[in-house]
Amino acid sequence: IEAHKKARGKIEIRGKLSLTSKEDLSIVYTPGVAGPSRAIHDNPESAKDLTAMKNSVAIITDGSAVLGLGDIGPEAALPVMEGKALLFKTFAGIDAFPITLSVREIEDIVGAIAAIAPTFGGINLEDISAPRCFEIERRLAQELPIPVFHDDKDGVAIVVLAGLMNSLEVIRKKKENIRIVINGAGAAGTGILKLLSLWGISRISILDRGGIISDERKDLSPHKKEFLPLLDPAIKKGGLADALSGADVFIGVSVGGVLHEKAIRNMNADAVVFALANPDPEIMPEAAKRGGARIVATGRSDFVNQINNALVFPGLFKGLLDARLILVTDRMKIAVASALAGLIPDPAEEKIIPDIFDIRVVDAVAQTVKRFA
Amino acid sequence: IEAHKKARGKIEIRGKLSLTSKEDLSIVYTPGVAGPSRAIHDNPESAKDLTAMKNSVAIITDGSAVLGLGDIGPEAALPVMEGKALLFKTFAGIDAFPITLSVREIEDIVGAIAAIAPTFGGINLEDISAPRCFEIERRLAQELPIPVFHDDKDGVAIVVLAGLMNSLEVIRKKKENIRIVINGAGAAGTGILKLLSLWGISRISILDRGGIISDERKDLSPHKKEFLPLLDPAIKKGGLADALSGADVFIGVSVGGVLHEKAIRNMNADAVVFALANPDPEIMPEAAKRGGARIVATGRSDFVNQINNALVFPGLFKGLLDARLILVTDRMKIAVASALAGLIPDPAEEKIIPDIFDIRVVDAVAQTVKRFA
Repeated sequence: IEAHKKARGKIEIRGKLSLTSKEDLSIVYTPGVAGPSRAIHDNPESAKDLTAMKNSVAIITDGSAVLGLGDIGPEAALPVMEGKALLFKTFAGIDAFPITLSVREIEDIVGAIAAIAPTFGGINLEDISAPRCFEIERRLAQELPIPVFHDDKDGVAIVVLAGLMNSLEVIRKKKENIRIVINGAGAAGTGILKLLSLWGISRISILDRGGIISDERKDLSPHKKEFLPLLDPAIKKGGLADALSGADVFIGVSVGGVLHEKAIRNMNADAVVFALANPDPEIMPEAAKRGGARIVATGRSDFVNQINNALVFPGLFKGLLDARLILVTDRMKIAVASALAGLIPDPAEEKIIPDIFDIRVVDAVAQTVKRFA
Repeated sequence: IEAHKKARGKIEIRGKLSLTSKEDLSIVYTPGVAGPSRAIHDNPESAKDLTAMKNSVAIITDGSAVLGLGDIGPEAALPVMEGKALLFKTFAGIDAFPITLSVREIEDIVGAIAAIAPTFGGINLEDISAPRCFEIERRLAQELPIPVFHDDKDGVAIVVLAGLMNSLEVIRKKKENIRIVINGAGAAGTGILKLLSLWGISRISILDRGGIISDERKDLSPHKKEFLPLLDPAIKKGGLADALSGADVFIGVSVGGVLHEKAIRNMNADAVVFALANPDPEIMPEAAKRGGARIVATGRSDFVNQINNALVFPGLFKGLLDARLILVTDRMKIAVASALAGLIPDPAEEKIIPDIFDIRVVDAVAQTVKRFA
């Protein structure tokens, strides 16, 4: 709080051209600015060379599902969005601008984002609660001529897959043989479930507040019913402890403190625990280790093995914007996960994923994305 | 165009906090960022201290009435908006962000702006064509808890009034005795008409593409019918040359080249010509002088007497944001014009308005605004 107060926030707008004389003014403003405006009017593509903003990304939220804090509203979400803008700039040189929305209806959110889209080169959806976020993403991706990426859903999933690839190497298990439990069926849980399925994991269970999701549940939303074909049919009923009994991997994208040591004791040997709730993980790393987990990861900067979407979004948008790509495909997501995992040639219990400050990360991700041009 | 291309636009996002270590990351992002987010959730007012964006201004256009270029669309408007953001930062230290809209219906524009409003400390409407701009401004000012200022309408009007105050001093005429002709009945013309009326000029005529606006015209839109009570009832019919015959002041906010030397010859002695169309004025200063004008002003940086809204908007928003004011009142507008005019103690033909680079300008405007707190 002190750091935020002292700086009065984390980002600012800065000029890239000097403005100290009438001559400068007649270049950057009237009459000179009419030149670039006319040029873009004649050829809209030239906006990418003549303006900064067409290379920028909007980080957009309605503040309905912020970190593990939940529905704290647009104003309170602003520090998180500014933090993300700071990461975009620091890691990938991308100008990203936070937009926090006062509206909650799908129609209104899609309308507002489509209305402001001409300003931006890409849209990063952030911290919008499920299931609204899925339709919002789907509709914007259809309507807009720029990339739309839902970071909570796909960014997290890509880093989880990268971490899982290396974890399996450490514990010497094959993806065909493992059983995974995902706790949390919001945006992140959904993204992880879909991407791990696509990658070839067949035995996955996912839990929401009502417990294990299966065809025996009568209370499933249409969105959750879509999960059913992807789920392990052998795991039908119960809570987190039931699901974890005999599982190999726990992936938590829920809320702090919900995983207990003793539930880990009933997992298979060499258990992998990704406790990714922010700011408070589902279980603290020490406790997970005491419970018998061999590999533990969190979303936090202050522990080893940080599974954080910051490993993906800067490089991903850099690749998309540089190559003028619009679609983020499933194959692209798996390729990016592979590239991230590959940056650690000898994975170890405390080193399954590259460090966020590893200068190779952004380039590895961006180059992988650009191969899809 | 070269300057814009070399820099790839005119503004960028810059970080205000360093981000080079895991410790930095845990302050600006997870888990540290949860602190400011929780604080704002508990007390929304604290967003002004803990974020940058709540002190920022959105510069919003739909690209329908850009400079004198007209309806060039949102992409082509972006260089102008970026230029304005550069002016905001350079002159007043305000972080302003351009938003260019893809929508044109009043309902959609109001909806989109209201939706993104929680991000910003103020809204600067820009280059939205009349008459839509009036209702958009009116509705947003009613709905939003932050200041909404239509710069083309009120910013220009304030600087015109300041320039007029000093011009009358130079030519030794009184406001009660002069006759003014405004060419152009869009946002700027409307703003000027209303503000000059309020200040006490009773003999004003205004022209649109159909000529002099009066109760004899059958084609007036509802918006233009509202003008009628403010207009000089003696001037009923004809074009620009008719209106100017015997007038003291010409104020052009229309398009380049529409005013001819010989029309100025029929104005009263010591004619004042404000040819403010951008980038091409209604008449070039040399030609206006040849026609007999004693005082000539344009909107351009490359001539003397630049009547440019850049004299107002940086200081105005600085005053509004610093004092947390929401309403821009008519009295405030006249006070700001007076303050601007007062910066020139001895006005002269070639010096009726302060220079944009006069470092006293922003403070004079901001302090005047703050007096209304």
